Amino acid sequence: MLKSINLSYKKLLNKTKDLIILQTVQSIIQWDMETMMPPKAVEQRSYQLALLSRMEHKISTSPEMGRLINEIKSNANYEILDQIKKRNFQLIKKNYEEQTQLPENLVSETTRQQVLTVNSWKKAKASKDYSRLKPDLDKLIDLNKKVAEILMKVKKTSTPYNALIDNYEPKTNTQTISKVFAQLQSGIKKLLIKIQDCPGYKNKQISKIQIPVEKQRKIAQLIAKSLGYDVVSTNSGGRIDETEHPFTTGYYDDVRITTHFHPNNYISAILSVLHETGHALYEQNINQEWKYQPIGSISSYGFHESQSRLYENIIGRSQEFWNHLLPRLKKITSPLLDDLSLDQFLILINQVKPSKIRIEADEVTYNLHIIIRYQIEKALFENEIDVSELPEVWNQKYEDLLGLKIENDSEGIMQDTHWASGYYGYFPSYAIGNVYSGQIFQALNLNVGKVKAQIKEGKLKEVNLWLKQNVHYFGSLYEPNELIEKISGEKINAQPYIKYLQEKYKKLYCF
Amino acid sequence: MLKSINLSYKKLLNKTKDLIILQTVQSIIQWDMETMMPPKAVEQRSYQLALLSRMEHKISTSPEMGRLINEIKSNANYEILDQIKKRNFQLIKKNYEEQTQLPENLVSETTRQQVLTVNSWKKAKASKDYSRLKPDLDKLIDLNKKVAEILMKVKKTSTPYNALIDNYEPKTNTQTISKVFAQLQSGIKKLLIKIQDCPGYKNKQISKIQIPVEKQRKIAQLIAKSLGYDVVSTNSGGRIDETEHPFTTGYYDDVRITTHFHPNNYISAILSVLHETGHALYEQNINQEWKYQPIGSISSYGFHESQSRLYENIIGRSQEFWNHLLPRLKKITSPLLDDLSLDQFLILINQVKPSKIRIEADEVTYNLHIIIRYQIEKALFENEIDVSELPEVWNQKYEDLLGLKIENDSEGIMQDTHWASGYYGYFPSYAIGNVYSGQIFQALNLNVGKVKAQIKEGKLKEVNLWLKQNVHYFGSLYEPNELIEKISGEKINAQPYIKYLQEKYKKLYCF
Repeated sequence: MLKSINLSYKKLLNKTKDLIILQTVQSIIQWDMETMMPPKAVEQRSYQLALLSRMEHKISTSPEMGRLINEIKSNANYEILDQIKKRNFQLIKKNYEEQTQLPENLVSETTRQQVLTVNSWKKAKASKDYSRLKPDLDKLIDLNKKVAEILMKVKKTSTPYNALIDNYEPKTNTQTISKVFAQLQSGIKKLLIKIQDCPGYKNKQISKIQIPVEKQRKIAQLIAKSLGYDVVSTNSGGRIDETEHPFTTGYYDDVRITTHFHPNNYISAILSVLHETGHALYEQNINQEWKYQPIGSISSYGFHESQSRLYENIIGRSQEFWNHLLPRLKKITSPLLDDLSLDQFLILINQVKPSKIRIEADEVTYNLHIIIRYQIEKALFENEIDVSELPEVWNQKYEDLLGLKIENDSEGIMQDTHWASGYYGYFPSYAIGNVYSGQIFQALNLNVGKVKAQIKEGKLKEVNLWLKQNVHYFGSLYEPNELIEKISGEKINAQPYIKYLQEKYKKLYCF
Repeated sequence: MLKSINLSYKKLLNKTKDLIILQTVQSIIQWDMETMMPPKAVEQRSYQLALLSRMEHKISTSPEMGRLINEIKSNANYEILDQIKKRNFQLIKKNYEEQTQLPENLVSETTRQQVLTVNSWKKAKASKDYSRLKPDLDKLIDLNKKVAEILMKVKKTSTPYNALIDNYEPKTNTQTISKVFAQLQSGIKKLLIKIQDCPGYKNKQISKIQIPVEKQRKIAQLIAKSLGYDVVSTNSGGRIDETEHPFTTGYYDDVRITTHFHPNNYISAILSVLHETGHALYEQNINQEWKYQPIGSISSYGFHESQSRLYENIIGRSQEFWNHLLPRLKKITSPLLDDLSLDQFLILINQVKPSKIRIEADEVTYNLHIIIRYQIEKALFENEIDVSELPEVWNQKYEDLLGLKIENDSEGIMQDTHWASGYYGYFPSYAIGNVYSGQIFQALNLNVGKVKAQIKEGKLKEVNLWLKQNVHYFGSLYEPNELIEKISGEKINAQPYIKYLQEKYKKLYCF
């Protein structure tokens, strides 16, 4: 019997290996679509992605898969399986149960509609015309509502939207999120008032110098290298490309990031490379022995964001980090930034100012952008608003929470690709990631000595190793709520993050 | 009954559509491997490609596919199907019959071994050490011999090697090829002696000026544009990237070429872009209505080469073409090539001189490189030589046919990626392509007035249109031997090509 359960497990893992490899193919095809694909190929690509998602669905739901799951589940020796095997099995079972409930046509139609909607989004954004996006977005949201209705039943969540959240942040729901976000919003509002009331606030505006794109490419490589992300050696497992909206994609030995280079905003490229490199390190550092197993993947998107935010903000916008790196940056750009002092540069990368565009937002107000999106998604999937109302609701919230007037939908509702790409329930992950990053950084400082002093000397080795061994390595062996407790000793909690922000900005703005 | 055959046909075509889309995914994944993939990802990629080929094989050989084929084959109304449906059916049936005989493990193992062998080839070539390639090449050839043995029975060819040839040039065999190649070899040898005996031959050597890579990139775009291959517009369906070994890959609206840029050899990039653009135009010009159908693909690799060779050599190395384009080339490179005359440039791109590297060979001796490879492949698959003897046999043939002494295996047996990539039976296509290009160009001149005068004015529109309507458009509606007869009025025949070479080089070298 023990032999038989191990054999079934081995067979099940083999089938899952196919599934995971197929998903890595999808991610390359998607990466190509964003970075390399000739524009005429949009329709062809939509068929390719639809086929791949249909095949993925077919493997996920194959009768053989169901048979093996039942064999293991009902086997008397189930309890004897070790923790790793049990967790792999649970993840496979969860995916099987969810996917078998989703009709193949709904899955492939949703994928195809995503590709078409992204294409409409590009055109609509370029022409600042929401009406060019609306029909496709309408269809895509309808399809996702159908998906959410089905998943709600399988996942046994209280609402369809909670089922979507569970796709990105398992075991989390609007109850927890709303509570944490309220904590976050209140902390940030107080901090923002303090910063804006600070006498030095207005004076601390420094104009940005133009840096040619070629130099910015070199800066991107410098940053990647300084964080330990290899994109140049003959055994490198990464690369940096250009897209309007930066992202990271990949698996173990092939994890790629993208960024954008605007001559008049080199800070933007610096921050996005810091951010995406955090994502990339996480993906590359998962236990190599778990490759092609369900546990050999990130714990949640919130955890993914916690690592990108930690590297981007907590490390990458710190005085210590730039104390070491700024001289190297200046060497690349010489003589353009020769006169820039470390203090000035720190103000430049830490300017707190409510702004319209999320990806250009400062570390403090960023969370308000996410809270807005979360509230809108929630209302949308709880049928309180519809697609035609989105611009109006969006603009109102930006006025209420950030005090900003949105002039057109390209700087408003259409600024992000997420909704056009079919990511619903994803946005909360960004702020959850910030919250986790505060908890993780606190734990890092408790467990590793002289963290700031090491960063100041450009020595990230010990910090990277701790993050690898205590966060990245575990993949999805644990649920995210278990993992954050294992790391920090407590449940999700915004206080450490708010405290980190308060201390940092107190020092920067001397309030 | 008529309704039933049409329904079966429709279902069969739908299943085939999946197969074709999956193949286009494979080609993107392969393109990525050659152009973009980080080096560490080799092993991951081998699993991805193996999975895709396994899935391709699964669809090709599915019982549903077999059932539908039988239904149509045995249907009393089969003869009523039109030419297009019949041809699609025959192509599907051929693929099904072949694939069902190939065990799934053999297919995926061969694909995986290909990826590993290409990787070994890269290392072996870099270190000029054939012993680093040999073990993997041995395995790959053994696997391909197994494949060839199986295919021989299905295709009913007289030898395993003929079965491999049929993969690239259907309905052609060593009997035909050996005859045409003998004709070709004799014609070329005579021409070569005439050229080398010519009093002006030795004087006509012009040294090449260094052109920076950035300028060469612009030249590549100029050439693509001048031939009608769009790689820049907002509705472009193409792109140009860099690989050591240039190639073309893609399907209809997404056809990509690669080239290499060596500062000390700008001519090489010019010729490879001309060549690959010919391939790209062929792929893009196939009847759009046949997309995702078997007939919506090239007729054969010989035909593919006929188009690349026609654009590269017959058009692209002609006085007329450069009469128009050289001034533009000079503008891009100014002042580096300001002193270069059209006559000098023509000698530069038409220098006839036996050389060791196939892809750098001139138009005349190129065919001898192919004849050598054909003879070796034939001997290898007819078990007259084995993998350990390859370098020796190679070097001997280069001495015999081209009078050259090979110094190391990187400039000898390991110069091409083809054998390491698992392309056996492919090499003959290059010379068959040359032969076809002579026949097609003759037909073009008979049917389109003042071809040379039009090219001289940079007007390729009518030439392109004729090629599109008479060659490209037909995809694989016809077997290649039928298509060449339809176009030229005769079977494959090396004489028009030899005549073209004679006339051209007589004029260039005044013998």
